Amino acid sequence: MPDSSPSRLADLPTPSLVVERSVFDSNLATMDAMLPGPRLRPHAKAFKSTSIAARLHADGHTGFCCATPREVEGLVAAGLTDDLLLANESLDVARLGALSDDAQITVAVDSDITLDAAIAGGVRSILVDVDVGLPRCGCDVADAGRLADKARASGLEVRGVMGYEGHLMMVTDTAKQAALVEASMATLLQAAEAVGGDIVSGGGTGTCITNTWCTEIQAGSYMLLDTDYAKQQLPFEISLNILATVISVSPKGWIVADAGLKSHGMDHGNPTWEHGDVFIMSDEHVTLQPHTLSDWSVGDRIRLLPAHVDPTVAKHEAMWLVDGDDVVDRWAVDLRHW
Amino acid sequence: MPDSSPSRLADLPTPSLVVERSVFDSNLATMDAMLPGPRLRPHAKAFKSTSIAARLHADGHTGFCCATPREVEGLVAAGLTDDLLLANESLDVARLGALSDDAQITVAVDSDITLDAAIAGGVRSILVDVDVGLPRCGCDVADAGRLADKARASGLEVRGVMGYEGHLMMVTDTAKQAALVEASMATLLQAAEAVGGDIVSGGGTGTCITNTWCTEIQAGSYMLLDTDYAKQQLPFEISLNILATVISVSPKGWIVADAGLKSHGMDHGNPTWEHGDVFIMSDEHVTLQPHTLSDWSVGDRIRLLPAHVDPTVAKHEAMWLVDGDDVVDRWAVDLRHW
Repeated sequence: MPDSSPSRLADLPTPSLVVERSVFDSNLATMDAMLPGPRLRPHAKAFKSTSIAARLHADGHTGFCCATPREVEGLVAAGLTDDLLLANESLDVARLGALSDDAQITVAVDSDITLDAAIAGGVRSILVDVDVGLPRCGCDVADAGRLADKARASGLEVRGVMGYEGHLMMVTDTAKQAALVEASMATLLQAAEAVGGDIVSGGGTGTCITNTWCTEIQAGSYMLLDTDYAKQQLPFEISLNILATVISVSPKGWIVADAGLKSHGMDHGNPTWEHGDVFIMSDEHVTLQPHTLSDWSVGDRIRLLPAHVDPTVAKHEAMWLVDGDDVVDRWAVDLRHW
Repeated sequence: MPDSSPSRLADLPTPSLVVERSVFDSNLATMDAMLPGPRLRPHAKAFKSTSIAARLHADGHTGFCCATPREVEGLVAAGLTDDLLLANESLDVARLGALSDDAQITVAVDSDITLDAAIAGGVRSILVDVDVGLPRCGCDVADAGRLADKARASGLEVRGVMGYEGHLMMVTDTAKQAALVEASMATLLQAAEAVGGDIVSGGGTGTCITNTWCTEIQAGSYMLLDTDYAKQQLPFEISLNILATVISVSPKGWIVADAGLKSHGMDHGNPTWEHGDVFIMSDEHVTLQPHTLSDWSVGDRIRLLPAHVDPTVAKHEAMWLVDGDDVVDRWAVDLRHW
């Protein structure tokens, strides 16, 4: 932690992202027990911090999943070069090809054009991305073998397949989710037979229990979590909160704190406050209706729970790891942007 | 523009924020004609760029409005020191007091505690922030004179009042809005009589025509605009779009581009695409249903219009100013964070 960083929770600037160490460590231990070592390919898009990636690497999760070329570049720069997967299609992959002497880099492709870009860009290994039901990327299962053959004919290593069942992450009934995941992954396993290679990559925090079909699970949100994931039957708890300062108290029944929609991912709605309701969000303000107005004064600190962790983290420069009232580390959010 | 920056629109990385120069210049000219010089106090929270601030300063808008201490600090560092207003309450103002030899800095206060923080922090001048109907900050009008007297007794300059009628920005009927703004501003003018000083500050892009009551208007979104403001009867057009690359085309009827919810402010909903509908947004993807699927191939560029400009800008490191197919400038978004 930089020498100038605050050592006490009360001295942190606001708004700040705060991570509770005991909960964070517990989430990591739970996942380690379920998906040890390379069974988990942590998704850097969720935490966007090389400090957290280094911790996961030390715990045995040496391969990483990335959503952007910038995330790959940042992990390479941090020396976490064992096995980096860009799990999204991109035409901007020459910048990754240029790093392929320094790191094992694999890129997802789902079309001739994305495969051609990988070949032209000096990328050395690919996964074939297969449509498993989410309306997003992925080739038709019937086309997966052809793309793999073309890649091999061009000298690329075909490491296997990936398919993201993102449409099933928020199915809260575990038995129902398990059946849906099995059907979705049957498509991916069919593609894997045609493609070859050792890797069948998929899954996420929401399906990390029910997806027993992949060789590796692409989960990242589990360690910090959010109120949306907390509605599911998952063995993780929310370790992340947004620290804010009360800057105004109105006799009309509300208080205002200095964490607005620019410090929260808003696509899943408002954050949650344990002492009352969120009334309105503005750029840099949240107006709250406390259960008991008289409990609150200007200068008090509050904590908000994020509705969607990944975009919340991406809005901040750093997270602060705390143990009770002590700030024990500062994690730069250094994998942002593109 | 840095030498290494792309000079052609087709060479920009994606996702990128793109500003159409002709529309941007037209928006500025329209506002200059309505609110010349100090009648406009441009709000830095909307554009968060010292490059844009320098242009506005050159156009005669020499005072700026800020939502965060960081915005004030950034404008001071850029030499735009004439008249900087932190239009939000804050307890973290000693960092602004420390800059008060270098710049004219004024801070909004609405309580004894925020006033005491300003005094203790070395802030030299204040505005009294008054509740004009938005459920957020601002003291009761009956308390404004007392706070002003206390500030003067402590040696601070009291420059006047501010009150933000944010609840009226999106009233689309101009005549109805005008009546509501008049009533709201009557409260502010009553406070101004009790407080003294020369400044009556308020308004925003949504009320820049109907708020004829303030001495200065705090507008910033007008120059870039978004689809929400575009629904109003305002003389501005959208100059900002999010450039993305098509990375996947599905025979099922959708295409996928590489600009997701991490590159868009999502609190006002999805962005808009002129050639079809937004189906789903993911972290780094937008799935679109084009009117004509066969028009689209992997590698095509698309442009999305933002639903809410301020938080969209705050997610990016830079904006690119373009004139047709030429990139003519890169504006760093250098006033982000807190």
